Amino acid sequence: MTSPAEGDSFHRMWADLRPIGRAAATGGYRRHAWTGADADCRTWFREQAEARGLAYETDRNGNQWAWLGDPAQGDAVVTGSHLDSVPDGGAFDGPLGVVSAFAALDELRREGARFTRPLAITNFGDEEGARFGLACVGSRLTAGVLSREAAHALTDADGISLPRAMEEAGHDPSAIGPDPERLARIGAYVELHVEQGRALDLTGDPVGIASAIWPHGRWRFDFRGEANHAGTTRLADRRDPMLGYAETVLAARREAEAAGAVATFGKIAVEPNGVNAIPSLIRSWLDSRAPDQAGLDTVVAAIEQAAKECARRDGLDLSVVRESFTPVVEFDHVLRDEIAGILAARLPAPAPVLGTGAGHDAGILSTAVPTAMLFVRNPTGISHSPAEFAAEDDCVAGVRALAAVLEGLACR
Amino acid sequence: MTSPAEGDSFHRMWADLRPIGRAAATGGYRRHAWTGADADCRTWFREQAEARGLAYETDRNGNQWAWLGDPAQGDAVVTGSHLDSVPDGGAFDGPLGVVSAFAALDELRREGARFTRPLAITNFGDEEGARFGLACVGSRLTAGVLSREAAHALTDADGISLPRAMEEAGHDPSAIGPDPERLARIGAYVELHVEQGRALDLTGDPVGIASAIWPHGRWRFDFRGEANHAGTTRLADRRDPMLGYAETVLAARREAEAAGAVATFGKIAVEPNGVNAIPSLIRSWLDSRAPDQAGLDTVVAAIEQAAKECARRDGLDLSVVRESFTPVVEFDHVLRDEIAGILAARLPAPAPVLGTGAGHDAGILSTAVPTAMLFVRNPTGISHSPAEFAAEDDCVAGVRALAAVLEGLACR
Repeated sequence: MTSPAEGDSFHRMWADLRPIGRAAATGGYRRHAWTGADADCRTWFREQAEARGLAYETDRNGNQWAWLGDPAQGDAVVTGSHLDSVPDGGAFDGPLGVVSAFAALDELRREGARFTRPLAITNFGDEEGARFGLACVGSRLTAGVLSREAAHALTDADGISLPRAMEEAGHDPSAIGPDPERLARIGAYVELHVEQGRALDLTGDPVGIASAIWPHGRWRFDFRGEANHAGTTRLADRRDPMLGYAETVLAARREAEAAGAVATFGKIAVEPNGVNAIPSLIRSWLDSRAPDQAGLDTVVAAIEQAAKECARRDGLDLSVVRESFTPVVEFDHVLRDEIAGILAARLPAPAPVLGTGAGHDAGILSTAVPTAMLFVRNPTGISHSPAEFAAEDDCVAGVRALAAVLEGLACR
Repeated sequence: MTSPAEGDSFHRMWADLRPIGRAAATGGYRRHAWTGADADCRTWFREQAEARGLAYETDRNGNQWAWLGDPAQGDAVVTGSHLDSVPDGGAFDGPLGVVSAFAALDELRREGARFTRPLAITNFGDEEGARFGLACVGSRLTAGVLSREAAHALTDADGISLPRAMEEAGHDPSAIGPDPERLARIGAYVELHVEQGRALDLTGDPVGIASAIWPHGRWRFDFRGEANHAGTTRLADRRDPMLGYAETVLAARREAEAAGAVATFGKIAVEPNGVNAIPSLIRSWLDSRAPDQAGLDTVVAAIEQAAKECARRDGLDLSVVRESFTPVVEFDHVLRDEIAGILAARLPAPAPVLGTGAGHDAGILSTAVPTAMLFVRNPTGISHSPAEFAAEDDCVAGVRALAAVLEGLACR
């Protein structure tokens, strides 16, 4: 196998994507769904498809497809990822899967591969949910796990609804909704993604195979106390919700540590949020994930219990609401074993199988079609940050692995 | 003395002010400096002055004055407070002093009082600092403790500068700055204010006299960590600044309790503030006050030390900046004793003398003119909140006390 870097399309793709939606102040990406930066990414995707003679289409939910062969034949092998980003996201989360898909196809064509199954490369829309607050909107709509009505109710921070945002970006939103015919034509979906932890770095492997996505969810903790003057209110007379919040943050870390899970308070809204005012309300969000459901239940129940005890002591009203939840996703075992076999036969070392705490379109689609994921080593584990990084050698190894998988699945 | 409530101007003043800048959702007031609600309050003040035949003027710094007698005579007795509010503030903090001033004048006129010194009623601009982050801007500028240059650098959350906000509200900002001639004409400034603690409630008195304002300040604590994915980053690999922040919040409470001081973290700004992102930055503000300077120094140093230890343990960058500071203000002893004598002679029970943790325009002006404050009982101690309350009987007692003081000072 030659290096994908030999054809310089690999480097050109990265060079073309690099400036799109990049914030000068932070170096991070702000490619939020249905914005100008997102449109530029979509134009890039279409150009890549057309330059390779692939049949381009946008589906009813705004996901992009580039087809080699006749989709109507069915049992298609599909690969891709997403091009949108979190606020100030990194360069690799999403784009690595799309760039690697095109590069793997280039590689296979250079080798003269003959495809017996249709192949598609995809860009799923609004994977990160940065604008409308819900992740994987494109794949959720397609898989029918997000209803048309619920999608219509999504709004961004400026009150712009998802359908209006689609329309303003030139996508007709009238037909958004489930797309079972499209899913029925897919025989396998394989998503390559930069790893978002350090598991591969710790094992010393450039590429790994996903076993499962941890069950995960977000819970809103509202601590309500009483606004009051920070200078004149005796400590004994206070009902300050910041104290209960602070103890709950520390409890979350302690409980996650004990259970081998993760738990994070990363978002908070304070009212009235004045320097000289005791807050009346701390609205805060817990993100928690664990290898299995029982572990997650234990962690969240313990955090909630700690919050309740603080609320009782400090005279706070506490409400805890589960805002979203995704049960464990076990990727298709048959497909996973097939991919492991292909990689074992063609790579210098077998790729380790690992779980992940991050949600992905592949997880959403796994309810409808056999799906699998490949991970590329992330030497720092940093993701959702401008500092996210993957070494070029590892990216090349990822392209090779994906090319091997596509050949193994689609050229037999 | 007849009741100020006999003339219905007292009730009409409250009825006129009640709807201005009131948020329907919370019942709290949002009368921030140089906004539409502030303009409505200012119009109300001017109308009150003109209806009473007082000479109305706005000074170079946007403070409003209503004069009875000739200011050029000097040795004026001035009373008043402010009409702006914190975000979702109460009805009494500020307006009680202005309404009581007009009501006390009405009362004295009904009694046929003859004034031998000029009298002025004032509304100092931007006392709360809700919009530009600095309290007592109107009195600070006038007293020369806020420079013209520093005032020009103040901006609100939308990046609008103070001079631009003044201009947009119809006040020419070109002359803002110290106003020593104006201060030289003032012989005494007496501010009546709703108490912001429960001292009078605990002693059972409707009215009290201020002894001193505690030294107080605000410090900005910036905890910088590393943004990362909340689902995939191992706990051991995190540099999560929310943990250090949480421990510092708890340390602040603990240290304040030990020292008989107060310490509050009421404002926070988180980046990127995403549910699934470990924060990169927690910017937070500490407000702390104590009966004396040594106590305040001890508390703040201990809180800073706790933050430093967290930062070292968690690999955070910590910066602590003192953003503002006001040393202890001892109100003029001669004026205070004079007022105590007047009240002892004219009220059924002597008014207790008490300290306070809240800053006031009277504290700022005390550097330039003899100042004093009267407090009206707050039965719950709640302030800076829609729930702030004072009983009508106590408000009436406040007007009577203020009328007695003005008569004692200005009619001798």
